[in-house]
Amino acid sequence: MAHPFETFRKRRTAGNEKVLDTENLAIKRFFALDKTVYGDGHLPARTKELLGLVASAVLRCNDCIDYHLEQCVQAGYRREEIEEAIGVALMVGGSIVIPHARHAAESLEYLLAGQEAG
Amino acid sequence: MAHPFETFRKRRTAGNEKVLDTENLAIKRFFALDKTVYGDGHLPARTKELLGLVASAVLRCNDCIDYHLEQCVQAGYRREEIEEAIGVALMVGGSIVIPHARHAAESLEYLLAGQEAG
Amino acid sequence: MAHPFETFRKRRTAGNEKVLDTENLAIKRFFALDKTVYGDGHLPARTKELLGLVASAVLRCNDCIDYHLEQCVQAGYRREEIEEAIGVALMVGGSIVIPHARHAAESLEYLLAGQEAG
Amino acid sequence: MAHPFETFRKRRTAGNEKVLDTENLAIKRFFALDKTVYGDGHLPARTKELLGLVASAVLRCNDCIDYHLEQCVQAGYRREEIEEAIGVALMVGGSIVIPHARHAAESLEYLLAGQEAG
Amino acid sequence: MAHPFETFRKRRTAGNEKVLDTENLAIKRFFALDKTVYGDGHLPARTKELLGLVASAVLRCNDCIDYHLEQCVQAGYRREEIEEAIGVALMVGGSIVIPHARHAAESLEYLLAGQEAG
Amino acid sequence: MAHPFETFRKRRTAGNEKVLDTENLAIKRFFALDKTVYGDGHLPARTKELLGLVASAVLRCNDCIDYHLEQCVQAGYRREEIEEAIGVALMVGGSIVIPHARHAAESLEYLLAGQEAG
Repeated sequence: MAHPFETFRKRRTAGNEKVLDTENLAIKRFFALDKTVYGDGHLPARTKELLGLVASAVLRCNDCIDYHLEQCVQAGYRREEIEEAIGVALMVGGSIVIPHARHAAESLEYLLAGQEAG
Repeated sequence: MAHPFETFRKRRTAGNEKVLDTENLAIKRFFALDKTVYGDGHLPARTKELLGLVASAVLRCNDCIDYHLEQCVQAGYRREEIEEAIGVALMVGGSIVIPHARHAAESLEYLLAGQEAG
Repeated sequence: MAHPFETFRKRRTAGNEKVLDTENLAIKRFFALDKTVYGDGHLPARTKELLGLVASAVLRCNDCIDYHLEQCVQAGYRREEIEEAIGVALMVGGSIVIPHARHAAESLEYLLAGQEAG
Repeated sequence: MAHPFETFRKRRTAGNEKVLDTENLAIKRFFALDKTVYGDGHLPARTKELLGLVASAVLRCNDCIDYHLEQCVQAGYRREEIEEAIGVALMVGGSIVIPHARHAAESLEYLLAGQEAG
Repeated sequence: MAHPFETFRKRRTAGNEKVLDTENLAIKRFFALDKTVYGDGHLPARTKELLGLVASAVLRCNDCIDYHLEQCVQAGYRREEIEEAIGVALMVGGSIVIPHARHAAESLEYLLAGQEAG
Repeated sequence: MAHPFETFRKRRTAGNEKVLDTENLAIKRFFALDKTVYGDGHLPARTKELLGLVASAVLRCNDCIDYHLEQCVQAGYRREEIEEAIGVALMVGGSIVIPHARHAAESLEYLLAGQEAG
């Protein structure tokens, strides 16, 4: 059986294709802008991914957490650093964020295992 | 295997029955009021369903999106119109709404296919 | 003394100028996209303003309510129609939206008085 | 100069009158239902007011906090009990609730002083 | 097949273990504080669990609802009382809370059946 | 007349004193934990302040924005860097965050002017 993170990846890719299979220019531009926001600038791209992770956690969106978590791991953040970011999100967002901290812990374990194996 | 939209329909019906199998008058009146709000008035019912769809999208509730999406399709909104409403929701609610735009795209595809076949 | 709506208008204009007095392209493009989303398309611009109003109400943002309320009044929506949209927002968002319904009622009164006088 | 709580009371009364000065039945019924929900039932009315206070705090609505805070004080809750309810709200809702805990502390001080004087 | 509530229990336990398998002191202290907040004090522990339930419902977190629901049932709240608390949550949080009221109704049925059998 | 940021500082200090003038240990520990979360660790304190700023912006809390903004300026973040963080918050949180971007721009201008003068 596929790991939940793999299922997320497939669902995300397929879903984005469906959303972007449209004549709607505003939606296409929204998605394009969403990419450029996280690029290198005055802040390095990796810092922005960490910002995206914490924003996703306090807004309690597992799909968004998974996406930014993977970007953070690829950008070289270590487990201890990511845990501190999640700690900030818990503090700001409260215990209602705990289920998402659980989700993040599972996804992080998977991503770090893949990195070691990779 | 049932399409996720069919699963939603069954879960919703069964769940509402459980919620309303109660002596609690406030809950019953809340559900009754929820129905009348979307009826024809100074604004046509179909406009209100579109309002309900966008409200559900920015509040990021997939079940609520599915419910209003079906009402919108039955009220005759075309795919292009619904996509523009989702575009407004993305703009107002931000990228955190994207997973719900993905969900809406899948549900909409199912509902439109059913309409063609119907 | 200025009406609160006038104060909002001035604060909004001055604030937007400050935000946009920047080299940051993402912010400029975000604001530009925010405008185009509400233009005429498959849905008329006025319907989109009503969607923006309800989205703003359920997300409980008075400044956003004021902005879309003015657009709705200029687009010709009558008081009765706007009240029905607010009614949908109350139903979807709950009593926590009531303080914003109060705010909207005050702003609407001001905008309609101005229209009559205008 | 009037205490902020007095200003709130006046703004609330005037605002509610404006909202309810309407032919819109859904809005009137919504307000009516909002009252009956907090009446005595299987749970005493005072417990429900405390529930309303905590719900208002985690949803971060100062007007709603003020309203339920006054009901709680009138229902006989002591400062220590209300502080524990606010403590639950802080824990569930996180540090983003702190500004509302500050607001609640100011309002509570005013309400308790009035009660002593009364 | 396991009841969804049993699945929740296992997922929750396993997830918390993963989150707490860390050197991060802030996260450990956050979890510890989260426990003490619900203990007996000026308000009885059971009242605080009911506050936690309503806070979870208006913030729309099914895992949090399930957790506090079980605590409430163990603390002796009867179905009618819990329904009134959910009624307050619906009123405050709006129809967007309905899917969570459905979830709560299913979980409550399971918990009460277990209690009778126990 | 005092700058709004000065008013915020005074209100915040006075409010926190009122909240912490209590026997309630949970509230005191919550505030203490809130401080330690932002200290140097695996991530530098300044990165955590930027995380706190973006979390505050997407959760739309002006007081929280002001607090973290001041910490960010004191930690040496330049205007361009802070604008990019706000850009991420706008993208994630949507146009509903715009009024808070306006607020942040005003506060930032004040803080940077003070720094130059300082």
